[in-house]
Amino acid sequence: MSNANADSLVASHDPNHPANLICELCRLFYNNGWVTGTGGGISIRKGDIIFIAPSGVQKERMLPDNMFVMDLQTKEYLRVPQSLKPSACTPLFLAAYTNRNAGACIHTHSQNAVVISLLYDKVFTIANIEQIKALPKITEPGYLGFFDTLTIPIIENTAHEEDLKDSLEQAIIDYPAATAVLVRRHGIYVWGETVWKAKVYNEAIDYLLELAVKMRQLGIPPDGAIGSERNTRVV
Amino acid sequence: MSNANADSLVASHDPNHPANLICELCRLFYNNGWVTGTGGGISIRKGDIIFIAPSGVQKERMLPDNMFVMDLQTKEYLRVPQSLKPSACTPLFLAAYTNRNAGACIHTHSQNAVVISLLYDKVFTIANIEQIKALPKITEPGYLGFFDTLTIPIIENTAHEEDLKDSLEQAIIDYPAATAVLVRRHGIYVWGETVWKAKVYNEAIDYLLELAVKMRQLGIPPDGAIGSERNTRVV
Amino acid sequence: MSNANADSLVASHDPNHPANLICELCRLFYNNGWVTGTGGGISIRKGDIIFIAPSGVQKERMLPDNMFVMDLQTKEYLRVPQSLKPSACTPLFLAAYTNRNAGACIHTHSQNAVVISLLYDKVFTIANIEQIKALPKITEPGYLGFFDTLTIPIIENTAHEEDLKDSLEQAIIDYPAATAVLVRRHGIYVWGETVWKAKVYNEAIDYLLELAVKMRQLGIPPDGAIGSERNTRVV
Amino acid sequence: MSNANADSLVASHDPNHPANLICELCRLFYNNGWVTGTGGGISIRKGDIIFIAPSGVQKERMLPDNMFVMDLQTKEYLRVPQSLKPSACTPLFLAAYTNRNAGACIHTHSQNAVVISLLYDKVFTIANIEQIKALPKITEPGYLGFFDTLTIPIIENTAHEEDLKDSLEQAIIDYPAATAVLVRRHGIYVWGETVWKAKVYNEAIDYLLELAVKMRQLGIPPDGAIGSERNTRVV
Repeated sequence: MSNANADSLVASHDPNHPANLICELCRLFYNNGWVTGTGGGISIRKGDIIFIAPSGVQKERMLPDNMFVMDLQTKEYLRVPQSLKPSACTPLFLAAYTNRNAGACIHTHSQNAVVISLLYDKVFTIANIEQIKALPKITEPGYLGFFDTLTIPIIENTAHEEDLKDSLEQAIIDYPAATAVLVRRHGIYVWGETVWKAKVYNEAIDYLLELAVKMRQLGIPPDGAIGSERNTRVV
Repeated sequence: MSNANADSLVASHDPNHPANLICELCRLFYNNGWVTGTGGGISIRKGDIIFIAPSGVQKERMLPDNMFVMDLQTKEYLRVPQSLKPSACTPLFLAAYTNRNAGACIHTHSQNAVVISLLYDKVFTIANIEQIKALPKITEPGYLGFFDTLTIPIIENTAHEEDLKDSLEQAIIDYPAATAVLVRRHGIYVWGETVWKAKVYNEAIDYLLELAVKMRQLGIPPDGAIGSERNTRVV
Repeated sequence: MSNANADSLVASHDPNHPANLICELCRLFYNNGWVTGTGGGISIRKGDIIFIAPSGVQKERMLPDNMFVMDLQTKEYLRVPQSLKPSACTPLFLAAYTNRNAGACIHTHSQNAVVISLLYDKVFTIANIEQIKALPKITEPGYLGFFDTLTIPIIENTAHEEDLKDSLEQAIIDYPAATAVLVRRHGIYVWGETVWKAKVYNEAIDYLLELAVKMRQLGIPPDGAIGSERNTRVV
Repeated sequence: MSNANADSLVASHDPNHPANLICELCRLFYNNGWVTGTGGGISIRKGDIIFIAPSGVQKERMLPDNMFVMDLQTKEYLRVPQSLKPSACTPLFLAAYTNRNAGACIHTHSQNAVVISLLYDKVFTIANIEQIKALPKITEPGYLGFFDTLTIPIIENTAHEEDLKDSLEQAIIDYPAATAVLVRRHGIYVWGETVWKAKVYNEAIDYLLELAVKMRQLGIPPDGAIGSERNTRVV
């Protein structure tokens, strides 16, 4: 299926071309420790065309030529790179595109996400932290406020990544204000209107997950009211 | 308002031009984890002209062309970049310029700052640590000594960043020796006579905040007398 | 023994030549903190020729010209760089080549490996974490599944690195499904079919060791059943 | 005193020239968090000429032109860069050169060093960890073995860095096998026969200090016998 015509879909000198951006962002995420050991995945949508990083390739060594390209309407591959396997994340990326009209979806194995998934049951919640303001309300225009609570649903992991699709879609329905879903003992999926928004949401959420782990270790409830930290203060 | 004349305010081949320095420092701060997810802000003053990073732009991808430029005397914008919003930190940067004659002001969402703001009430204090010597006395010439106590006031966060202005100004009045103010559950503002001094103060303070968190976790009071750590020693 | 002919074994403009790859990977491992202070080692096999980083050279400053080259069948050096000593890891690398037909072997002093070796007795085990899927089954084709348990044997350290050979070989026999061996109070050896697989296994294992330390600190057994973490949840 | 003749002492295209090496190593140490906020210092000796980084300059922005140059025999400056102050570490560097014939001396504010100085009284000791083998015996040729104990004396800090000289020299006399001295609530001085050995010793020691903090937090004595960790194992 891969031919010169299909290759032109991923060959571009524009650094903002999705095939180039995926490579650049994968290097960044690798340096964050989010996608080591070929973990994680990423997809960017451009109109009705979606670009998807392949399975099993080292994220920091990805090349534009490694990208799968799919037609979002027909779900048919427009390009299949030679000797690479499609990402098992693909059905989950499609869920974000279809149900939320996302422009990009990022999946990481961030340790902060995995640890939080071990500390919380059905949802992770955090409130009254400034960084929350980087995240969108989704159900209405605009961003969360400082006094708002960020809620991220947690779904159970499955043996095969593609089998997460149903529970991810259910979480998207059950939590209409969520722009991310945690997968227990696995990692996190984050999406956004554009690739840059998805990246910023991912960074802001990971910051909050990391902070929440620290707060829990200090005995401070991450979703506690302002002043609730006084109970644990020794000074 | 933005035109060729205004654009010349931010276009320079000199790496030490404020518009270039802001971009360079934002990349550095991003790598420190201080301004991920578009968090934080920075402003540099050159005479009566101040340069301010815009709101909502990814800090590590900032370009000189993104900068707002303001006349410090008239508070009027000399340059407004197209389709960008002014930083909500602007009134706070102005407070540092006006009340302290600062040459630059840096705002980060450093997790060390947020965690310390959860562990302390009205002020953070640390004493008898060498790194304290990197910080200025402010109320008289020279730098703090090893035996001095560094005091940083903590103010309560507000729903809107600009509403921090009054309490930040009050803290500046109440703590005339402070070169920084912590904002609870939010981050820190640090200023200095020049951009490089502001950066060095910021680094030194963040080092001390990080160390104080570790000391607290080990049961050692960060502002304790030399020898007070003996109580917790097991060897 | 080193001469122009031997030098041609390590001189190449191809970045994927083993002598070049060793240098590139050592810089990466140095930045991970795995081989600071000249710690650790690495070897890559190309057919029956093996390339080995020398002893005592700073890993991030290694040059292709520093490489030892050995014939795997005769165990004779094809190239000995001037004024450098062979790595004491060499017999251990040979054990991985001989007993497992490895394509590369990596040895690091990763602190995660050392800490885990202090927390576990004969074997380290972790289960029900997605990242486990990056590791091979070895005894049959394919990779471990999410519900599988990863087992890594731990051997006791010896005064001289080369004396680890017998117990490493015994561990390879006793644990036929292992692609790595932890050395107590020392570090870890990881091998794979190719250098890239060895690197990916190393990254995935280190991720799991790091996560296991965090889980233990939170009171969650790393090899516990799904749901076992509920006992320690406070929310 | 600074003139064209003196400037030639620090101007070289050779990356291994001491003035260039100091700049390169300071950037590395800055990225390690060892010399943020202008903290720390470094000096390299070439025969009887010593090169010293100035006081108060940001370590990652140092230029060869910023270097002080001194004659080790006469203790007279051969070069004083304009408008810079000599490092307060200079007497301590001289102590390492004079008493130990060191080729370089590094001073950092590493947080691992400061934390360890709060946990130990007169000396820090660690034993039975492989990384110890990177450190020299000093009192006889060769390196420490795996079963040896590394001992680093701890001296009390003083108001002025130069006043550490007497106690540093006393520690050098009292601990003839030490290649480093910890300064309580301050940092560490490490020296070696060459700049590269000093760097490697510094890296190996910092690795061991970091590991020791982790071991203490897990309740495992860093200088305990092999097997002593069993008491704290829960698996």
